[in-house]
Amino acid sequence: MASDKVLLDYGSGGRASQRLISELFVKHFSNPELERLNDAALLTPNGRISVSTDSFTVDPIFFPGGNIGSLAVHGTVNDVAMIGAVPKYMTCAYIIEEGFAMDDLEKIVASMGEAARHAGVAIVTGDTKVVPKGTVDKIFINTTGVGEVIADPVPAGDRARKGDAVLVSGTMGDHGLTILGTREGLSLESNVKSDSASLNHLLVKLVQEIPEIHVLRDPTRGGLATTLNEITHASNVCCELEESAIPVLPEVAGGCSFLGLDPLYLANEGKFICILPEEYAEKALEIMRADSAGSDACRVGTITDANPGKVVLVTPLGGKRLLNMLEGEQLPRIC
Amino acid sequence: MASDKVLLDYGSGGRASQRLISELFVKHFSNPELERLNDAALLTPNGRISVSTDSFTVDPIFFPGGNIGSLAVHGTVNDVAMIGAVPKYMTCAYIIEEGFAMDDLEKIVASMGEAARHAGVAIVTGDTKVVPKGTVDKIFINTTGVGEVIADPVPAGDRARKGDAVLVSGTMGDHGLTILGTREGLSLESNVKSDSASLNHLLVKLVQEIPEIHVLRDPTRGGLATTLNEITHASNVCCELEESAIPVLPEVAGGCSFLGLDPLYLANEGKFICILPEEYAEKALEIMRADSAGSDACRVGTITDANPGKVVLVTPLGGKRLLNMLEGEQLPRIC
Repeated sequence: MASDKVLLDYGSGGRASQRLISELFVKHFSNPELERLNDAALLTPNGRISVSTDSFTVDPIFFPGGNIGSLAVHGTVNDVAMIGAVPKYMTCAYIIEEGFAMDDLEKIVASMGEAARHAGVAIVTGDTKVVPKGTVDKIFINTTGVGEVIADPVPAGDRARKGDAVLVSGTMGDHGLTILGTREGLSLESNVKSDSASLNHLLVKLVQEIPEIHVLRDPTRGGLATTLNEITHASNVCCELEESAIPVLPEVAGGCSFLGLDPLYLANEGKFICILPEEYAEKALEIMRADSAGSDACRVGTITDANPGKVVLVTPLGGKRLLNMLEGEQLPRIC
Repeated sequence: MASDKVLLDYGSGGRASQRLISELFVKHFSNPELERLNDAALLTPNGRISVSTDSFTVDPIFFPGGNIGSLAVHGTVNDVAMIGAVPKYMTCAYIIEEGFAMDDLEKIVASMGEAARHAGVAIVTGDTKVVPKGTVDKIFINTTGVGEVIADPVPAGDRARKGDAVLVSGTMGDHGLTILGTREGLSLESNVKSDSASLNHLLVKLVQEIPEIHVLRDPTRGGLATTLNEITHASNVCCELEESAIPVLPEVAGGCSFLGLDPLYLANEGKFICILPEEYAEKALEIMRADSAGSDACRVGTITDANPGKVVLVTPLGGKRLLNMLEGEQLPRIC
């Protein structure tokens, strides 16, 4: 590379841009379609497709458990898979601040390549914009994923039904606490790190073995509580959660207590909620626990028709309180 | 709306976010898939698909001829169509600075809805991130488009061949000059405005009537000169351009002269290059001129094998000079 910093020149469409594209991205994302470097990628998916987009503005960009790049791949892979699809392709658009360190860019790009390979997706086209210092904070990334849908009907937020079991694939709040803790300069315990991971292999297995699944969703921004509220609102049902059943790492609970946070409202980037008819709950838990992405899977609640659109937390003493959607919490740049 | 400014709260995944999504986006982008508000959209394209992504960081965000929103729709519609596809779906991801005026956001969103309807595409899913003041300059937008490919083989940058005619669909430099001129505070003549427009209807017609077309590409960042260099490099051919044949509005030429710019290196957002076998050139020009998006279409050059990978400008006096790729020009945030 001519420089150890990303220059404005890299994004204006000129020769230096060409070098950036050729050397870095093709090197880490190598696949035949990307190498054609056309304006658009030509793809041949089979049948129905799932498409999802997300922008990643996380701060800090490097954190225990990952970085903005790996997060961007895992996040979109997961969203594509949540409607019962096999993620196949991804686009990747960078907005980079002038002066950003090339070494850091290479680390991020390399992480993305690795995450994509692990998830089995090809990064087929992309875009790079370099903007003047101060107009973006370091780097933002957008990923848009395309997958082949295998479920029919597809799991969806409006399909939760009275009597369904509510499962989660593992511990809550890890990613959110890691980000906020790192920003606050806390020394985190070594096992407190972002749970950012691609869940597609497990999700595809689940959907293939239990086509009766009603809802799959990852509780990202706003956490478990907010995501369940979205679902109960869309499905017009109630969710009763057993507080003592919700898995939270002791160290995460401790960190949350210290920072005045509630793990039920913190983002998760490697976990999902599964809502399905009661009779399939045990089978689903078995499949989830057999996979490293779901080893701490457990049942946390039940869908009822008691308070449509609401989420009710049942405390260990049997008391009930409403778990509302997140409101007025200033938690930016978590993912 | 509760506030006339976009608040951090809007992006954290809580109740206010829900309102932003429901009220503004669904209102302007109304279609059944978007209204399901799932993590991913379920689509059923026919056969091969074209996928393209772009981030838009243009400054200023409102300019003569459009705004960052309409630009984001037109730009991605065009890239999808350039490989001979009918654009059908689009995703849209916003990164918005805390404090951004809701009125401006609504204008941008409304423009996008209108541009999408005009182009015949549905905005099926999206994302909104609100970031703290100072971490992004006002608003950035990513659009990713999906289209159904109708050409076979598809036009591509590596398909230009010796003897091909090189056509452009209209005047060069309008968008780039408009942006840079507006930034410099120039009063532009009333007909100097961004040419930002969706070209898909014309491109689809061309590809259907002349399947022998080799290359279609829009000369955006870096302008006509840079884009032709990309093509000659990919195809390992030479492009000889007749300087006097390249259409440039007198007012754009004048503005460029004043600002020390070369219209051949300025971005175009509503024009395309068409490279095809000589014998189809007249027919292509006829089709282009019959459409408002191509009324000033003309032939500007020929593909030869004289200087592979190069673009040669033939002056009115018959002299020749190399037209190199843009290098070292600091022209950020044009699109």
